[in-house]
Amino acid sequence: MRTTVKLRNVIGKKVKRVDALPKVTGQAKFAADMYFNRMVYCSLVLARKPHGVLKEIEFSEALKIPDVIGIYTAKDVPGENQLGEVVKDMPCLVPVGGKIRYYGDVVAVVAAESQEAADEAAKRVKLSIEELPPIFSIEEALKDEIKIHEPTNVPIHKKIRKGDVEKGFAESEFIFEDDFHADYQEQAYLEPQGVVVLPDIDYGYTVYGTMQCPYYVQNSVAHILGIDLNKVRVIQTETGGGFGGKEDVPSYVASYAAVAAYNTGRPAKLIYSREVDIQTTSKRHPITSHYKIGVDKSGKLKSIEIKAYMDMGAYATLSPIVMFRTLVHAAGSYEIPNVKVDVYGVYTNKVPPGAFRGFGSPQVLFAVESMIDEISLKLGIDPIEFRLKNTLRVGSRTATNHLLTESVGAVQTLENVRTIADWENLKKEVEEFNKQNSFKKRGLGVSHIIYGVSLGAAGQHLDASGAHIQVNKDGTIDVRIGGTEMGQGAKTVIAMLAAEELGQKLEKINVHQPDTAFVPDSGPTVASRTTLYSGNAVRIAARELRKRFVQLFAEIFDTDPEDVSWENGRYFDSKGNELSFDELVENAYMKNVKLNETGWYETPKLEWDHETGQGEAYVTYSYASQIVLVEVDMLTGLTRVVKGFTSHDVGKALNPEGLIGQIQGGFVQGMGYALYEQIKMDRGKIVTDNFNTYIIPTIHEIPEELKIDIVEDEYSSGPYGAKGIGEPSLMPTPAAIANGISRAIGKRVKRIPATAEYILKLIKEA
Amino acid sequence: MRTTVKLRNVIGKKVKRVDALPKVTGQAKFAADMYFNRMVYCSLVLARKPHGVLKEIEFSEALKIPDVIGIYTAKDVPGENQLGEVVKDMPCLVPVGGKIRYYGDVVAVVAAESQEAADEAAKRVKLSIEELPPIFSIEEALKDEIKIHEPTNVPIHKKIRKGDVEKGFAESEFIFEDDFHADYQEQAYLEPQGVVVLPDIDYGYTVYGTMQCPYYVQNSVAHILGIDLNKVRVIQTETGGGFGGKEDVPSYVASYAAVAAYNTGRPAKLIYSREVDIQTTSKRHPITSHYKIGVDKSGKLKSIEIKAYMDMGAYATLSPIVMFRTLVHAAGSYEIPNVKVDVYGVYTNKVPPGAFRGFGSPQVLFAVESMIDEISLKLGIDPIEFRLKNTLRVGSRTATNHLLTESVGAVQTLENVRTIADWENLKKEVEEFNKQNSFKKRGLGVSHIIYGVSLGAAGQHLDASGAHIQVNKDGTIDVRIGGTEMGQGAKTVIAMLAAEELGQKLEKINVHQPDTAFVPDSGPTVASRTTLYSGNAVRIAARELRKRFVQLFAEIFDTDPEDVSWENGRYFDSKGNELSFDELVENAYMKNVKLNETGWYETPKLEWDHETGQGEAYVTYSYASQIVLVEVDMLTGLTRVVKGFTSHDVGKALNPEGLIGQIQGGFVQGMGYALYEQIKMDRGKIVTDNFNTYIIPTIHEIPEELKIDIVEDEYSSGPYGAKGIGEPSLMPTPAAIANGISRAIGKRVKRIPATAEYILKLIKEA
Repeated sequence: MRTTVKLRNVIGKKVKRVDALPKVTGQAKFAADMYFNRMVYCSLVLARKPHGVLKEIEFSEALKIPDVIGIYTAKDVPGENQLGEVVKDMPCLVPVGGKIRYYGDVVAVVAAESQEAADEAAKRVKLSIEELPPIFSIEEALKDEIKIHEPTNVPIHKKIRKGDVEKGFAESEFIFEDDFHADYQEQAYLEPQGVVVLPDIDYGYTVYGTMQCPYYVQNSVAHILGIDLNKVRVIQTETGGGFGGKEDVPSYVASYAAVAAYNTGRPAKLIYSREVDIQTTSKRHPITSHYKIGVDKSGKLKSIEIKAYMDMGAYATLSPIVMFRTLVHAAGSYEIPNVKVDVYGVYTNKVPPGAFRGFGSPQVLFAVESMIDEISLKLGIDPIEFRLKNTLRVGSRTATNHLLTESVGAVQTLENVRTIADWENLKKEVEEFNKQNSFKKRGLGVSHIIYGVSLGAAGQHLDASGAHIQVNKDGTIDVRIGGTEMGQGAKTVIAMLAAEELGQKLEKINVHQPDTAFVPDSGPTVASRTTLYSGNAVRIAARELRKRFVQLFAEIFDTDPEDVSWENGRYFDSKGNELSFDELVENAYMKNVKLNETGWYETPKLEWDHETGQGEAYVTYSYASQIVLVEVDMLTGLTRVVKGFTSHDVGKALNPEGLIGQIQGGFVQGMGYALYEQIKMDRGKIVTDNFNTYIIPTIHEIPEELKIDIVEDEYSSGPYGAKGIGEPSLMPTPAAIANGISRAIGKRVKRIPATAEYILKLIKEA
Repeated sequence: MRTTVKLRNVIGKKVKRVDALPKVTGQAKFAADMYFNRMVYCSLVLARKPHGVLKEIEFSEALKIPDVIGIYTAKDVPGENQLGEVVKDMPCLVPVGGKIRYYGDVVAVVAAESQEAADEAAKRVKLSIEELPPIFSIEEALKDEIKIHEPTNVPIHKKIRKGDVEKGFAESEFIFEDDFHADYQEQAYLEPQGVVVLPDIDYGYTVYGTMQCPYYVQNSVAHILGIDLNKVRVIQTETGGGFGGKEDVPSYVASYAAVAAYNTGRPAKLIYSREVDIQTTSKRHPITSHYKIGVDKSGKLKSIEIKAYMDMGAYATLSPIVMFRTLVHAAGSYEIPNVKVDVYGVYTNKVPPGAFRGFGSPQVLFAVESMIDEISLKLGIDPIEFRLKNTLRVGSRTATNHLLTESVGAVQTLENVRTIADWENLKKEVEEFNKQNSFKKRGLGVSHIIYGVSLGAAGQHLDASGAHIQVNKDGTIDVRIGGTEMGQGAKTVIAMLAAEELGQKLEKINVHQPDTAFVPDSGPTVASRTTLYSGNAVRIAARELRKRFVQLFAEIFDTDPEDVSWENGRYFDSKGNELSFDELVENAYMKNVKLNETGWYETPKLEWDHETGQGEAYVTYSYASQIVLVEVDMLTGLTRVVKGFTSHDVGKALNPEGLIGQIQGGFVQGMGYALYEQIKMDRGKIVTDNFNTYIIPTIHEIPEELKIDIVEDEYSSGPYGAKGIGEPSLMPTPAAIANGISRAIGKRVKRIPATAEYILKLIKEA
């Protein structure tokens, strides 16, 4: 893949990723690398049935395995045997007499002296389960005949009511209506789930593990063990990818291990195999949606009505907040006067999906952008022109009636992507190609998205974050934040911000692994919020420290503090006075200057009406526009992504290299979602449980060119204007690819993944 | 021992020591309890000669031991092979060609898979040493014929010049002159030195160990490994006693282990045996002193001239700062217009003494109080009256010419100790006893001391400390300070201060093991400074947090913040509004209130002239007066302490139970110093290297009664008025006992320990 980057305003400099070296040399420690003396190895006993009542657990054969220390069940949970971040509908360990709701329900935790012994014993535990008829589809569940949870299989309903959709349709010249389905996607992080829970020197427990949200893990372990929060400390180990899959799940993993640690009194390690990880942990939610859109004569969107059903699997987990994002993003990045959205959460006897890059929005963005593409096609309007006519601008009101006052780069991303793709020529090239080829057809897909940064109205109590900075007397700096590094580059951006604000060299800054003990509950590392929240918290702390250094410099040289500057390891003034940062700090130390500081950043409170879904959904929004050129093999149905062009309004590119990496990765992960990745089940058991059967894009699938354009429409509250990029990097891609295929084959793609089988079927349809 | 306590103003409440339960249940983890996976065990190769040049190190026999991993010498030290907190005169590992200066010089570190293998290999390492004539006495060293270090054996000289002593003597009616010697004392902490150094998850090293001064250890390890301070993190494990013996020594221990950790790439554990600990680590300095005192007709002290020689052993270690305290305290707690003090530090080929409760002052306080006792005896003045006539008061100037403006409880301690001892009757009882007994004689010893709190003018850059407080959303609180708990009760006092300031219940507060990562360099935990410095830092942080809680409470109830009160887990106002602390914090969390804060406390800078030893030596002073009743067996020379009466001006008793424990412990340790504890050497090798030969007081030796009186002459900058108690608890006892013996046997005790042998010799002298 050749990547061409056009940075409009180069603010950030090209730097070496701060965690690059330890990662390539193997010095970085992942959860599986953590070994402690007297550590026990855990294995889980899974229900292995989709629906039923647990009647009996039989240990005797399992206990015959040498080296088994204990097998712990619901009765061995010292605190409340209850998990679930939002809805408390999920037991930690299903008790005898309790309900089994999916294959991956955990019944017992085995602790043994070796992993082999633990796994073997787990296999030999016999469960008697009185089976109930399982429900595997949204349609079945909606009937509410067999209830997975009381009182209903459809416990959650979120809505937007803006204007009057019926009036809007009546005023429309054209009305379009269609159904879409976006299926599961597995996060496919390199490193599977894993933790070690150990008794610590402060008389509590320390949890080391791969995770995105240490505070969630802390809550969960304290709850399961029935102890105070100041007896549980959580330290994130190096994390090999998360993508949302390590938002809530590590809380469950750590809880199982905590039960073993508590009962054995020893450090307990629980590392998931890839198979158990895929079979039992969260995915992107399948969403089935129905769209109806009205357009007036001038091509303006007048009215949109959406019904979306989300498959929550056996437990609600994070679904209620995922649904909030589905709700807000369902109508896309457009100004539409009349909006009605209904999103329903539905229980089934399958794995509970949860967070995944985009968090409930790529499914509906695929749908709405497919609709928009179809409308532009039907109306004979250029798809970019059509979007430009309807997209959000400063002064627009979103579907939730949020008045946008700044940092709306939507138009610019559309214009820029058109420019970098050389759109008119590209269209001609494709036309030419299709004229000359019968068995291969090319198509240009466009998409355009909005992304609400951070948690927004659904999680305002979480929209704040802390930082802790300590300067050592040799001038080196320790930075701790509440957000986590999971590969996305948070450590590098945070180190850059600290270096910038403090005037120290980047290599003197150590951004440590997150640890709940240093920074108060800073919410989760999700929703593309780390640069904004942790970044601002670091700036607040750093500026407070800098004030002291500037003051000291001014005292030493009897100069005006206003005249003091700082950069790259030195402080200086216009009179030629200069001290290295290290010298200045040594001076500060000798004078008892306070050398640490905490920062805390919170965003203003948002107004939100849960009844109508009207108000300020998020603090700000990122925007993106994308064009992909796809080629479909008309004989096999296989799609190849030939080229990509993508423009992202990120507010400000702090670390352009890292940003580009995020966009590249998001694009490829979006390709996987659009084309290849398919979860297949056999009576609720996932059979595509490793990468030989669950197919993700490899180096062979990436496009020959991906042109990236960065729009910097600064957000006044962001650090140097920055907004989020983690999720928006993926979000436009599935829709763009689906639209490209639709245009290539002349049939509307209505479900993703658009596998070869599905495309072939479409092609063959009349 | 029956302890009767008279608290004059009960401010502090009786609380359970916060670390009591984990200590008695064995949950507390000491250095030796720390085990890590793939950990190597270390053993040291000692020089085992007092003086010479290292010619060769021969490993071959040692390497034959199975399980030996490596033997590391000076050339394996990656950083600078240099130790020493103050003077860099001490190698980490003596290199081939380098000088051996005492028995305990370390030549190599052995790392092995087991402790047994490491120890056996260390024994088999053969050293070729070209021996030099050793120097074992101050007298020999002063000749400077054989030089232990270039250019001289007497590198340090500190002085006080106040008034004109010759003029003072000329104006005196009486002049007294004598020589004294105070010998070694071993700290005899329960837990020997020990550390584990391990590579950590943040790509640096973490040191766990028993210690008083984590920041010293951090400096030392970074220096020895040649790495930045933000790559070394030091976490104090539960520490079983320090008494100064864990001030600088753990820096050396950790450095040896760090060399092994660096070279093996594995966690390295080094735990000293009692023998190695006594043979090689610091003790109380032997000090030989000459005193000359002039008194006028009215019994007022006119002039004092002191020469003191301190045996620094082979390396200066902390001696230069210990000498500062010797210097300032040498003239006692008296107002004397003319003062001349000279203190010399002298190298010998013996173990380097260092910090020990009292830090160079008990030796000279023994001397000056012996002089005062002798003078009062000669002049026929009651020893308490004589001290009352000459002691310091508000408005007095100390020997360093420091004008005392507040919190001078000296007079009150003298008056109170006289009262609690029922002094006049006690004197009669003793007279009566001595009339009726020939073979047993009783004596009453009085002493009176001053103690400069914290580090003072000699270490102003260290006289500041930090704290970090985090409130969890369940209302539990985490407190971190830069000071350490070594048994003295710091955690309890700190928890009490946090509970008081925040209004939370004591049991909800967890004062964690100190960790250099949380709090910037806060100086050492020495000099009885923890309550003052860490205590004030905690108060600063806690008050900032409380402000937020009060503000929030006022907002919730629409009440006046001025009307909000807090205590023991609740906030309330006069209108009857009330919230539990936990509810209020949950509310704060939901509203994104910042739930952590750092505190930093520093004292005003002191004016000090190093040339004349004049100025503000310390920020404030504690005072104590003591009476002991001793009984000497005139046939064996054995002394029994029958009763003790002690009054201490501590500013304010925050935790009276803990304070009393400190005073009891200090008294008994002072008894050991006065009577029993004696280091014996054979050509520089300590032979009294365990508690079968080095005799410390046991339950059998403690007096039948110890009456404790607390004077609270508040120090305006102390937390609630508190000053220090750690060291002053011991300081009056050696002098009081020596004076008691002198009065019992009618001969002046001029050296401590006043062992039976020495007393018998005195008795038998003409």
